Amino acid sequence: MAQTLSAATAPGGAQRSAPMPAVTRMPVYLGALTALIASGRTTASSEDLARTCGVGAAIVRRDLSLLSFTGRRGVGYDALDLADAIRSFLGIDRLRPVGVVGAGRLGTALAHYLSDPEHGFSVQAVFDAAPARIGEPVGDLIVTDISDLPRAVEALALELLVIAVPADAAQSVVDAVAGTPIRGLLNFAPVPVRTPAGVEVRHVDLATELQVLSHFAPSSAEAAGGAQPVPGAAAHSPHPSPGPLEAET
Amino acid sequence: MAQTLSAATAPGGAQRSAPMPAVTRMPVYLGALTALIASGRTTASSEDLARTCGVGAAIVRRDLSLLSFTGRRGVGYDALDLADAIRSFLGIDRLRPVGVVGAGRLGTALAHYLSDPEHGFSVQAVFDAAPARIGEPVGDLIVTDISDLPRAVEALALELLVIAVPADAAQSVVDAVAGTPIRGLLNFAPVPVRTPAGVEVRHVDLATELQVLSHFAPSSAEAAGGAQPVPGAAAHSPHPSPGPLEAET
Repeated sequence: MAQTLSAATAPGGAQRSAPMPAVTRMPVYLGALTALIASGRTTASSEDLARTCGVGAAIVRRDLSLLSFTGRRGVGYDALDLADAIRSFLGIDRLRPVGVVGAGRLGTALAHYLSDPEHGFSVQAVFDAAPARIGEPVGDLIVTDISDLPRAVEALALELLVIAVPADAAQSVVDAVAGTPIRGLLNFAPVPVRTPAGVEVRHVDLATELQVLSHFAPSSAEAAGGAQPVPGAAAHSPHPSPGPLEAET
Repeated sequence: MAQTLSAATAPGGAQRSAPMPAVTRMPVYLGALTALIASGRTTASSEDLARTCGVGAAIVRRDLSLLSFTGRRGVGYDALDLADAIRSFLGIDRLRPVGVVGAGRLGTALAHYLSDPEHGFSVQAVFDAAPARIGEPVGDLIVTDISDLPRAVEALALELLVIAVPADAAQSVVDAVAGTPIRGLLNFAPVPVRTPAGVEVRHVDLATELQVLSHFAPSSAEAAGGAQPVPGAAAHSPHPSPGPLEAET
């Protein structure tokens, strides 16, 4: 993974040079801060965040130095202020209007999941191409015909789209985004897509995640000492957990 | 992210030294091969896979050299044989029995999604703690009481678990895995978890993915030239797409 993205455009309008791994850790710091605040804490040290998030305190401090924010030596960070600074960095200091394309099981689940305002997003529209789905309710919303996407993006000021459609439909959805103000796509369709200039894509393939895990997880027969046992396979983790907080620099 | 994992344990029983980025690309090659085969192709070159998957052909060749498999110069890889070799590498050359913990919207969507045998998994059980959910159907399965997890893991030979429970319930689920033959967890709960020795975890936080995207996607007001416009923000992508195929070595 590219370690440094020079002059990445931050939503606040500032040009920032933020390494992708640092950006990826910010939501996790925010989650940890939210939990600390909920438990009554008003300050958090880099050690607190390091412990909760499973990274080194030096990495926490370096990451947080990307924010326009400073802690007080010996006191730590004001928890509420730091959470606000991270939200601002991520562009979720206001609820960002989001659309979900695909009203199947996954799209519906995502629409509900992302409707929690704590995440920073407001799901404003759910789209589908199937006549049987259009007009049906998803939470408080009514499924909209995908052909209305450009108009709805404009009318609802949608800024990000979540794509949860079958593989063979993904490219046509991405193509429909060209010319709209949408600048970010979270693609759950299990297929690479060609994206219009100026549009960012993050790809999440749920089966892929499980397949990668599968490579590193021996079968229970092997783990239990069945055929062709792997010496020590059941006794220790062969490598650090590849979670989002895996330390890298 | 750690670039190389030495002596990672492959499910086939062999000790392999496979870099995580290469492992992460294997499912994408498999998806591309599946599409090529469906379109009637019998061979695939590294250039074919590079073009479809958006990585360099040299990376494709190096990744595929991890497989116990070789292409024929000038002919390319036999598509079916290569797909089989990747399935074997990933440990999905047979359907691996999987359990899903959490029968809410997300867990239900995941149980259905992962039941497609093409992914390499067979969802054999869905667990929940809520009395209202236990006994309800999810597809062909009946939701099982989470307290039955250790017994069901044994009875159904479950090898991997997908965790789709609220944040405050995730750790107790992970703790319940200790002592069972489960060696891999795919955690959708938005919280880091401490895992038992010998258990691999991959963490997928859906809101986090959207928050990371949010950082790089300017708001539509900015993109449309509203307050504090970012010069050029709407005209070009500020950095390569951070998808799973981002080239890294």
